[in-house]
Parts: sequence; C-alpha cells; structure tokens
Amino acid sequence: MEKNFLRSDETLDDLQLKGICVIQKKDAFRFGIDAVLLANFSKIRRGARVVDLCSGTGIIPFILAGKTEASSIIGIEIQNEMVDMAKRSVSFNKLEEKIEFINKDLKDLQFLRTLDKADVVTVNPPYKLKDSGIINLNDKNAIARHEICCTLDDVIKGAKAVLKDNGRIYMIHRPDRLADIICTMREHKIEPKLIKMIQPNTEKAPNMVLIEGQNNGGTFLKWEAPLYVYNLDGSYTEEINKIYGR
Amino acid sequence: MEKNFLRSDETLDDLQLKGICVIQKKDAFRFGIDAVLLANFSKIRRGARVVDLCSGTGIIPFILAGKTEASSIIGIEIQNEMVDMAKRSVSFNKLEEKIEFINKDLKDLQFLRTLDKADVVTVNPPYKLKDSGIINLNDKNAIARHEICCTLDDVIKGAKAVLKDNGRIYMIHRPDRLADIICTMREHKIEPKLIKMIQPNTEKAPNMVLIEGQNNGGTFLKWEAPLYVYNLDGSYTEEINKIYGR
Repeated sequence: MEKNFLRSDETLDDLQLKGICVIQKKDAFRFGIDAVLLANFSKIRRGARVVDLCSGTGIIPFILAGKTEASSIIGIEIQNEMVDMAKRSVSFNKLEEKIEFINKDLKDLQFLRTLDKADVVTVNPPYKLKDSGIINLNDKNAIARHEICCTLDDVIKGAKAVLKDNGRIYMIHRPDRLADIICTMREHKIEPKLIKMIQPNTEKAPNMVLIEGQNNGGTFLKWEAPLYVYNLDGSYTEEINKIYGR
Repeated sequence: MEKNFLRSDETLDDLQLKGICVIQKKDAFRFGIDAVLLANFSKIRRGARVVDLCSGTGIIPFILAGKTEASSIIGIEIQNEMVDMAKRSVSFNKLEEKIEFINKDLKDLQFLRTLDKADVVTVNPPYKLKDSGIINLNDKNAIARHEICCTLDDVIKGAKAVLKDNGRIYMIHRPDRLADIICTMREHKIEPKLIKMIQPNTEKAPNMVLIEGQNNGGTFLKWEAPLYVYNLDGSYTEEINKIYGR
C-alpha cells in the first residue's frame, strides 16, 4: 500500500461492512441508497461469478464482496478516473483476489464476450435520457446520471454478452423507465422475473424500481411488497435499518 | 318494465350509487372489487364516448353511468346470457339513452371498426392464461377468468380498433402479467402512461394492477402511490371507503 494513496480531493468512506472502505471524490457523484439497495436485492450464490456494469467507483462490487460469497466480481467502467479510484480501493481493502476493475466501454461487446460467463450481472445505470437537461457532456456527474455513454439498450446488450444461459441480471432504475426496461429485456430474450418498487414512504409513489431478469428465462413475473425508505414520522423503516446493518 | 324481469337464479344488486342496480347470477361469476377499482381509476370527461370490453353483466358501464358524465357507454360481451342480463339491467335502471350492450366477440375487429370511435376503453379481461388449470372450457366462470375466448393480444387489438387517436385505455389485471401487458400495448402503439399497483395492505405484494395506456401516445410512464385495500388491523382503508362511497 503506497502512503499517499488518497488524493486531496478524495475521501475514504467506511461502508460499515467488514471494515471495507471505498475511495470517492469529495465533490463528484457519490454512492447513494440505490447502490446499497441493488446490492441487497441481488441474489448471489456461493462461488458465483459477478459482473457489475457502469461500476463507477466500485461501490456495488465492494458491498457484494462484504455480503456474499461470490468467487469473482468484475467491475466494468468507462471513466478511467473512476477505475483508478476503484483499483486503489481494491488495494486498500486487500481484495485483489476477489475484485477486479476494468476500464472499458460496455458497448465493446467483443471485449465483454472474452470474459468468463457470469452467473449474475448487476447494474445501476444512468437513469436519465440523454436529452433531459444536460449542461456539459464531459461532466463526470452527467455521465453517471444521463445516458451519454450508454443507453438502456447498450446496458442490456452488455449484460446479454456476459451472462450465462439462465444467468440473472439485477438492475435498479426509475419507475418511469420500467416499460422501456421490460421491453428492452424481452427484445434481447432476458425475461423479467421479479420486481420490487421502492417508495419514500407508504403514501408516496415509487421513485425507484428493482428488477431481476433471467437470460433466456421462462415467463413468470413475481412481485415483492414495496420497500418503504421512511416511516410516516420521517424515521428510517426497520427494513432500511436492517439493510444498512443498524 | 316487465314484471318477471328477474329469473329465479338471479339477484338484483344495489350498487349504492344513485339507485343503480345490476342483475347477476346467484352462483356464477359476480362482480368484485376489481370492477369497482377500474371504474374509479378511469378518467372520463363529460360527453366522452366509452367502450367497455369483456363487459360481462355490465358492472363497469353501470358504475360509469353513475359516476361520470359520459355521453355513451357501449359494453361488448361474447356470452349471450350475460348480455341478456345486462340489457334487462339497462331497462330496470332506465339507462337506455346512455348504455348499450352488444353481444359480439371482441375478436370481430371488422365489427368494432364500425362503431363510432371511443375516447376511452375500459376492460377487466380474463386474468389467467388458457392453460392454467381449467376444467371445463364451456364454463361461464372459466370464460370470465381464463383466456379462453380472448387473449391479452386480442383485448389490446380490440381496444386499438375502437379508440380515437390519443384515446385512453384503462385496464385492471394481475401484476404477473404486467410485462405481457406493457409489451403487447407497445406492439400495438398504445403507450403505457400510468400505473397504480393494488396491495392487500402495506406489507403484502401487489395482487392487482391498474394501467392506463394512450393510443399513439408519447413515452412517459407515471406511477401513483399504491392503493391498499386493508389497514393492518383488517379494516378497510380510507381510500377504499371513499371509493365505495362509505
């Protein structure tokens, strides 16, 4: 471990999970509840091979390394600066044998097909359409939030390229994109199998959706009860506290 | 009104809505909460023309006649016995100027296209796939519950045949069919615009879904907060009591 592994514009954040920490920029896109909820929603068996697309600073691979017995987790991220942070986080946490980050565009299907096939793909993709109010196309935050470097279709194609037959994809997204997600999955023969809506509380409309799809899976869509983030008094719900290990 | 308009195996049920009553069989498929929720979810403007597919004994047209200022409501139903009951209910309620029932197969697109174009289509279709545990294909209840006489694709094609450009369809269905519904709608250029899940209570997974689609509509899917039928103590929620006018 080099001494100055952390830059002045970065922070080292404790995940409160087996001592794992991740490096993030102080003022750029930082991981939020969506990454935590997605990692928690993903069913990963002992020895599974996982590929995380749109991996950013690697938050999902790090949570999965702490929570599951996956044998290997590969994060694919297009922004070199993010991959650089993620790789330094791997060293800091001494997770070289479990986690690897690769600086690649997920549209590079030829490259993705060279990877060993994955049991599970996780992805927390950019939520917003490219033309929905972007100021600067080079902005790192814009790339994480808007479909500048990849569309939903690219994400599903990327997942398809790395998944085993019957392998599963776990995605978190916005409910207003659910019709797009379902139709795009089916177009690529990934069958939606499970949906869980996330609501701020019991009285509010859902603002996130968790979806599981199966590569070449049969048709049957299950629903879980929604996850409510807050109680009506503004405190966190029991389910959220449990996910955060509180 | 003839004196013996009600047969011995039928009941006359008061909708508790402007004195409207409907005739139903004592021991056959009787209307349930789904019809009431669908009628309540449907946005119908003054003077609108409405077509109700899979109309059965006409429960949705009768609720809409009581709740809205639609100018005309046509119910299409394949089972002659149901249409016969529905027509006697029209006479009983003296709603001949507003409601009409037609004994037709909704797969008869040529016939549907002869109707004046509708602003709104409502439909509470058979929920279950044809091959999911049916005993008797001639059973009236089976026809109402299983896709024996019409599939989801037939229903959407029927709606497409009667809807105005930009007209809306309102449907209630099972959540496990939502991927099918969304993809079938889009295949026929009916865009899903609004979804509201229905849950038994806040802790249970949704068991019904309300969906609004727009004929040739633009892409934007909104979600409402779910409707919970029961409070956790087993009593009806305020929202349900309001819908039932209690």
